[in-house]
Amino acid sequence: MEKVKDLRWKKGISVNDLVDSLGKVGFQSTEMKKAVDVIIKMKKDGAKIYLTYTSNMVTSGLRGFFAQLIELGMVNVIVTTVGGIEEDIMKAKGEQFIIGKFKSDDISLHEKGINRVGNLFIKNESYLKFEDTITGMLLRLYEKKPRWPVSEMIHELGMMLEDKSSILYQAARKKVPIFCPGITDGAFGFHLFMLQQKHPDFVIDVVKDFANILFSTTHDDKKGLISLGGSISKHHAILACLLNGGLDYAVYLTTAHQSSGSMSGATTEEAKSWGKVKDDSDVSTVIGDVTFTFPLIMMKVLDELEKEGIIHVK
Amino acid sequence: MEKVKDLRWKKGISVNDLVDSLGKVGFQSTEMKKAVDVIIKMKKDGAKIYLTYTSNMVTSGLRGFFAQLIELGMVNVIVTTVGGIEEDIMKAKGEQFIIGKFKSDDISLHEKGINRVGNLFIKNESYLKFEDTITGMLLRLYEKKPRWPVSEMIHELGMMLEDKSSILYQAARKKVPIFCPGITDGAFGFHLFMLQQKHPDFVIDVVKDFANILFSTTHDDKKGLISLGGSISKHHAILACLLNGGLDYAVYLTTAHQSSGSMSGATTEEAKSWGKVKDDSDVSTVIGDVTFTFPLIMMKVLDELEKEGIIHVK
Amino acid sequence: MEKVKDLRWKKGISVNDLVDSLGKVGFQSTEMKKAVDVIIKMKKDGAKIYLTYTSNMVTSGLRGFFAQLIELGMVNVIVTTVGGIEEDIMKAKGEQFIIGKFKSDDISLHEKGINRVGNLFIKNESYLKFEDTITGMLLRLYEKKPRWPVSEMIHELGMMLEDKSSILYQAARKKVPIFCPGITDGAFGFHLFMLQQKHPDFVIDVVKDFANILFSTTHDDKKGLISLGGSISKHHAILACLLNGGLDYAVYLTTAHQSSGSMSGATTEEAKSWGKVKDDSDVSTVIGDVTFTFPLIMMKVLDELEKEGIIHVK
Amino acid sequence: MEKVKDLRWKKGISVNDLVDSLGKVGFQSTEMKKAVDVIIKMKKDGAKIYLTYTSNMVTSGLRGFFAQLIELGMVNVIVTTVGGIEEDIMKAKGEQFIIGKFKSDDISLHEKGINRVGNLFIKNESYLKFEDTITGMLLRLYEKKPRWPVSEMIHELGMMLEDKSSILYQAARKKVPIFCPGITDGAFGFHLFMLQQKHPDFVIDVVKDFANILFSTTHDDKKGLISLGGSISKHHAILACLLNGGLDYAVYLTTAHQSSGSMSGATTEEAKSWGKVKDDSDVSTVIGDVTFTFPLIMMKVLDELEKEGIIHVK
Repeated sequence: MEKVKDLRWKKGISVNDLVDSLGKVGFQSTEMKKAVDVIIKMKKDGAKIYLTYTSNMVTSGLRGFFAQLIELGMVNVIVTTVGGIEEDIMKAKGEQFIIGKFKSDDISLHEKGINRVGNLFIKNESYLKFEDTITGMLLRLYEKKPRWPVSEMIHELGMMLEDKSSILYQAARKKVPIFCPGITDGAFGFHLFMLQQKHPDFVIDVVKDFANILFSTTHDDKKGLISLGGSISKHHAILACLLNGGLDYAVYLTTAHQSSGSMSGATTEEAKSWGKVKDDSDVSTVIGDVTFTFPLIMMKVLDELEKEGIIHVK
Repeated sequence: MEKVKDLRWKKGISVNDLVDSLGKVGFQSTEMKKAVDVIIKMKKDGAKIYLTYTSNMVTSGLRGFFAQLIELGMVNVIVTTVGGIEEDIMKAKGEQFIIGKFKSDDISLHEKGINRVGNLFIKNESYLKFEDTITGMLLRLYEKKPRWPVSEMIHELGMMLEDKSSILYQAARKKVPIFCPGITDGAFGFHLFMLQQKHPDFVIDVVKDFANILFSTTHDDKKGLISLGGSISKHHAILACLLNGGLDYAVYLTTAHQSSGSMSGATTEEAKSWGKVKDDSDVSTVIGDVTFTFPLIMMKVLDELEKEGIIHVK
Repeated sequence: MEKVKDLRWKKGISVNDLVDSLGKVGFQSTEMKKAVDVIIKMKKDGAKIYLTYTSNMVTSGLRGFFAQLIELGMVNVIVTTVGGIEEDIMKAKGEQFIIGKFKSDDISLHEKGINRVGNLFIKNESYLKFEDTITGMLLRLYEKKPRWPVSEMIHELGMMLEDKSSILYQAARKKVPIFCPGITDGAFGFHLFMLQQKHPDFVIDVVKDFANILFSTTHDDKKGLISLGGSISKHHAILACLLNGGLDYAVYLTTAHQSSGSMSGATTEEAKSWGKVKDDSDVSTVIGDVTFTFPLIMMKVLDELEKEGIIHVK
Repeated sequence: MEKVKDLRWKKGISVNDLVDSLGKVGFQSTEMKKAVDVIIKMKKDGAKIYLTYTSNMVTSGLRGFFAQLIELGMVNVIVTTVGGIEEDIMKAKGEQFIIGKFKSDDISLHEKGINRVGNLFIKNESYLKFEDTITGMLLRLYEKKPRWPVSEMIHELGMMLEDKSSILYQAARKKVPIFCPGITDGAFGFHLFMLQQKHPDFVIDVVKDFANILFSTTHDDKKGLISLGGSISKHHAILACLLNGGLDYAVYLTTAHQSSGSMSGATTEEAKSWGKVKDDSDVSTVIGDVTFTFPLIMMKVLDELEKEGIIHVK
């Protein structure tokens, strides 16, 4: 039986050493270290890794880290919400989001044309510029063909970008499919609608994309999931894997609890009842804001995998 | 300034009287009473009322209450996740869900073919029967035409049901559109996929449905939102109303907090920065499990509206 | 196996009927109905009932309901924090607290001499008047004897009050001891200190009060706990019962979760490992704000017990 | 206005660099970086620093880190719950706690004599040995004098220990007073009671200790608070500082939210209404499990202060 061990700081301590020590501190720190172990195991086992996240994480600075993870070959399939597509494109086109405050005068912000997401601010003009950008991009796609499965469309959009910190850019180059089961639920949906108004034969084929995610890995592949937050992204990845033989590894990072039966709070325990995950030793749920839990966990993973020569830094 | 007032029980106390008293108790009870006031105001003002909920609430017994609210004319537009469609159909076809426990032996449940959602259980065979049901229903729709906007498809499905406690049944009869921006994210998606495999011209038109939700109310309509939980359903209703001039009234019932910038935890305050809602006095956020906050709030509302002759019980 | 049942409103529905229906709705509503059953069972079994709550609940209108429960004979032992003593006395002396807002301009409130507790406000002058009141009351006690166990002192204070909605008043008359293991942690502590400055032999005997809570019930008594919120109050009642043979029944109502290992979030499950509670069927944990969970649960309990003639309304 | 910046991993990244980057990521990471800035500012400003924590954190491996912080001169006054005293002594005497699981079979644990605190386990025999230890220690104190203010007693206990990782050991040597306003609420209370049974003149003077915490800093001292979790510890430190002119700096790390008006969830905003803290720029509330938020924040602080020569590592 492992024992609790007193934590100590040492000068210039690395994330790698800190997370090692946290494993023996208890509570969510111990769950966090377990998440590290599960991710390392899934990678070494050659599992196809699904990463899911929600749009607010792309509003945040995690966006560049997601792009880096794709570049490093740590992710095989992505599922996200449409805001996570829109804002990645905005940022790839140079838009900058602002660090604000949770407790703001929201009416005054509105008058200034500023939209708040927690303690982050997005200007109205960022959305206006996005309109210009995306209208042209979508028209180019329509000119190729009128019927688009979502992930194929996102791939093409990624190919049009030139920003190494962009999730879509990296995913397109690394052939990592990005699924978005609710593609119309954002400004993006509005621009799709505008295009269809002009070109009624334009259609987004979400059913074909269900086939695409089903076939994104085979029944025989080992499969691992790293799910950040809840929402349709989390559920969709789990569903696709379930229909494809179930997950071998699962790490859920969330702030929600299971008391209301929501997907955001559903644990890796509950997933076992669905056959969604198979074995107790290969799952971990960590409660906490992903803006710090995910970097802590994943940077530790990267340091370890780099030392073992499994990932390579240029 | 209103004062805190000591709560007292009296024999056989009604929900109506309890919620009145709770308004002067403080904390979330006071917010709850404010939610009652906002909903009564939106109804009396003739606002079009959007109701959004997630699939776990249809797993729960709230499902029949949602159907009753539609029947009573309290809801004009619905947005939900696909599980909320599937499970309503399952129940309309006689499937029963089981009251279980949060702390269950999930591996053993899996072996018995039981799937857990919080403290509720769904049998595998319920999904198998759903497969039989939905396959036939979808085929009938395809035979009418190959291209279906989501809400029109859900309307047709509702017309095929014969259960007065069914949300789809009541919505179809009352011409209340049900939107589902992530229609493929569930067993339903799999059955759509199977149909498309046989009939490649079958397509779900999610872009057309964006037009449908945009035009579900006019710019001039007063608009009110009652949002239960978070997810794409909440966001989609807010988005549609925002593009259509903004909400006049908004009540959010959720267990999430705003600390991580998620949609589930986004408050009616934050919504003001987006122009999503307009005025401070017409919004309320109540933190708590909707299985009790929503009935408490809404039954008080119904009692009041019935007394004033605004709704009519048969 | 019990089945989920569709909830329906009926005109003028009583709390009693609503809570019955909620039992079959699922999630926290089902846990709430289980709490009702556990409390009814503990009362019928003749258990000594411990009620614990924190000071913010006395700030709220729950205060009068606690007093009523004591009057009705539903409570045998109370444990609370010192704010719960202070504010009960303030209110007994006519002070009124104000219903405010969570999102307030706190600096401006401070300038106006208003202190915020969530969405409730307490004026500075309420504290000033409390100073006048308590100084005299404490002096009278000191004149009787210099060394006071906490619960004996609180009993005497209760005997000096004349307000039927007061917890201390009812508890003193019903001989329900009120324990407060952190008696100095509030304005009360400051006034004790002032008295001791003048009379150095004045001493509060907290150790003797540990004996008092230990002997407040016997080893042979059946024991039940209704714990609202967390804190030292919850822990102290559990500890006293544990040393006295363990709890037979336990209901925890809280907003906290167990993920951080805190007492507030500790579940009735965890309590089993400590021998704090004995059997699975006699415990319930309900997640939610006690300002509505407790009235819903307890008013249902009172209606049922009154019908069976176990409690009597004057 | 500061901009969100994409986060990137680099090989062997230090905690110092990570926390810098997190400041520009958003959500709780940004609040965390603000907490770092506030703590650095309070230290440089020569403020007296109050640290408060609850007993579960001493169950965890944070205990050794607290001791190290005292040794480094980062803490001037401590407030905690009695479990935080007991378990520090247990560990100082060689007891080891076990890393277990949140989802355990609690009845079986009880049969094995194992007590669960979240995902940590404490053996019954640790409590038995504590009984032997503390009985002797308390008797030695009683032989000196019969009446003990709490913090003076804890100081003496600390002087009897010989473990550099012990909080009590370091605090005694560094003359950092440890306050515990609910000293009887634990096994410790039981042992005090046993001693008083034999020696009725033995008394713990909690009122005198209120004077001690009031005079632990002067009105003129700058005062800063680092509060971990909620409970009486947090409240007591705030109260003492409020009576002494208010806090100049405050950092609250907690998992609770303010929606129920509890102390655990009370924010640094609310504190402003009480005059508990003075200025907006010098406060920060971070939502998350302290087992990782506190090390991240504090190790960054230590690295920075060490670089500037304000703290010194031997």
